[in-house]
Amino acid sequence: MEDRVKLEDGAGAKESWKIIDELFLSRVPPELQKTLEGFGLDVLDDGAGVKVNDKEYLVFTTDSFTVNPPFFPGGNIGYLAAHGTLNDLVMMGAKPVAFMDTIIVEEGFLRKELNEIVSSMLGVMLRERVSVVGGDFKVMPKGSIDRIVITGIGIGITDSPIIDEEIRVGDKILVTGPIAEHGAAILASQLGMIKETKSLRSDTKPLTKTVLPVIQKFRKYIHAARDPTRGGIAATLNEWIMKKNATILIKRQEIPIREEVKSFLEALGVDPYSTASEGIAVLAIDPEKAEEIAEELIRSGESSTKIVGEVITPPTEFLKGKVVAETEVGGKILLEPKSVNLPRIC
Amino acid sequence: MEDRVKLEDGAGAKESWKIIDELFLSRVPPELQKTLEGFGLDVLDDGAGVKVNDKEYLVFTTDSFTVNPPFFPGGNIGYLAAHGTLNDLVMMGAKPVAFMDTIIVEEGFLRKELNEIVSSMLGVMLRERVSVVGGDFKVMPKGSIDRIVITGIGIGITDSPIIDEEIRVGDKILVTGPIAEHGAAILASQLGMIKETKSLRSDTKPLTKTVLPVIQKFRKYIHAARDPTRGGIAATLNEWIMKKNATILIKRQEIPIREEVKSFLEALGVDPYSTASEGIAVLAIDPEKAEEIAEELIRSGESSTKIVGEVITPPTEFLKGKVVAETEVGGKILLEPKSVNLPRIC
Repeated sequence: MEDRVKLEDGAGAKESWKIIDELFLSRVPPELQKTLEGFGLDVLDDGAGVKVNDKEYLVFTTDSFTVNPPFFPGGNIGYLAAHGTLNDLVMMGAKPVAFMDTIIVEEGFLRKELNEIVSSMLGVMLRERVSVVGGDFKVMPKGSIDRIVITGIGIGITDSPIIDEEIRVGDKILVTGPIAEHGAAILASQLGMIKETKSLRSDTKPLTKTVLPVIQKFRKYIHAARDPTRGGIAATLNEWIMKKNATILIKRQEIPIREEVKSFLEALGVDPYSTASEGIAVLAIDPEKAEEIAEELIRSGESSTKIVGEVITPPTEFLKGKVVAETEVGGKILLEPKSVNLPRIC
Repeated sequence: MEDRVKLEDGAGAKESWKIIDELFLSRVPPELQKTLEGFGLDVLDDGAGVKVNDKEYLVFTTDSFTVNPPFFPGGNIGYLAAHGTLNDLVMMGAKPVAFMDTIIVEEGFLRKELNEIVSSMLGVMLRERVSVVGGDFKVMPKGSIDRIVITGIGIGITDSPIIDEEIRVGDKILVTGPIAEHGAAILASQLGMIKETKSLRSDTKPLTKTVLPVIQKFRKYIHAARDPTRGGIAATLNEWIMKKNATILIKRQEIPIREEVKSFLEALGVDPYSTASEGIAVLAIDPEKAEEIAEELIRSGESSTKIVGEVITPPTEFLKGKVVAETEVGGKILLEPKSVNLPRIC
């Protein structure tokens, strides 16, 4: 049988890392993985940077959004594209300055719905004072695309990009908000269970007002930052540590998660730690300032912020580059992103 | 009946301009249409620019590619995404420096075909020494997307971006290559006529080696530049002139087009002037240097280059902002992009 692309290849977990390595990383020589004294594919992050003068970098990020359904409790695909793009910039320590998008819709898509999606997306940019500098709009014949796909491109500026390579033994791991809210809401929508699960809503929101100021204030103590979307916090933590001579140790009961979200996902056999959030941040920070940063995040509005673990020397060779979770009853298990078949979630 | 998105809304002609205006331009206040001493939505061009130091701009462009079929005579969607992105930068007078992409494939897509598409795309960048700095890869469930969609994002650098607003009365209009080659090849593929139309091949190619050096050498005499993809040269010329107090007058028999392409399209009732090319340029240039620029383009490899018309004072109020074509028999007609139902052509 011929080899074909599988859903898991795009799920943000191990299979994704493998196909991205095979298709892209292994084919581009190191000197072409970055540009103009910047960084790019050479660092495992969500964006790229170009040094544009003595002290500043322009930072770029891109993501495609294909959520199904496009309208869901707590938002729509327009908000998702806007917030997701801004948050990728914030997680690189950059102030967002400009936004571009490409939209592909299916012929027959309701104009009223398209208007609402675009208004939601542009509304975020206008409120954030981010320029909208270009884009592309295409229509595909009925049946050739399921409703709508949006690609967001973000441009930000920073004098010190966070490229997630500074993570080191001793760092504390901090999570700002209750996890898995977005994924749970989408799953409830896909299963037609919105009425029974009224408390499940996407957490899609920009991190520009709450997290960016704290990142800027404490920049030199922040060694990695990521919004744990596809693949959840399990994917983020594993991506950070997989090539390091270190282990991440997490106390699972410290990870903020709402009881409704946890029980809903567990009833369906879905791993909350691999489930997407769209409005939270995970940080790896200097232990010396960890408490202070957590308090500052709580003050700025991220009231669920918790320190959930730390980076340690690998206890064994096997645990090098791995994430270990201490369970509620004191046992230890590997925390790995599950390639759950939850397609089109963000 | 509820208002729904139509195929014509994405065809690159009048309906496209209207929906883009309604959805985007009219909703973003002027001060947020550009950024950092740059330009963006405020100019009707294919990209945006950000001034990054005393003399240089970084230029950005994005486009989605959805061609059907993804493999066609003369290329595949990977080449199209790579060349299309580079050419948009070249047409802004910029040297391409970095590339990002997002790929969305349908579950079940052949890995062998995906490998070939990605190899084609990355191969272009490696040969052009353009850095590949990031991207996104997603898989949609079978039936929710027709095969593959690629978004290309290009970053270029220039000290003098061409933003197509400098076009003025007196300018000569130059076209580098035979037009409509790409659209004709795709149409032949879609109609299952590849065997009968062996000479029809996409012209997809980068303009970095042939056109960019000429643009750089003669920059101050070049007032507008565009690769006439979706909507063909009719769309390009109309977009340039629609808001100007001027008229473009074209001699139709001067426009380079191969006889096989012309007769194939005309037999199907398709307007060649509204049909996409993927490897040619249209320029508006100072009349003083027009011949010299044309000769230089021919020397650099664009052997079909022709001066095909000029920008004139509007002969009547009605013709203000319009494109007029002098036909082969001396009559005059309006040259307008036709919203031909040729979906998924680039």
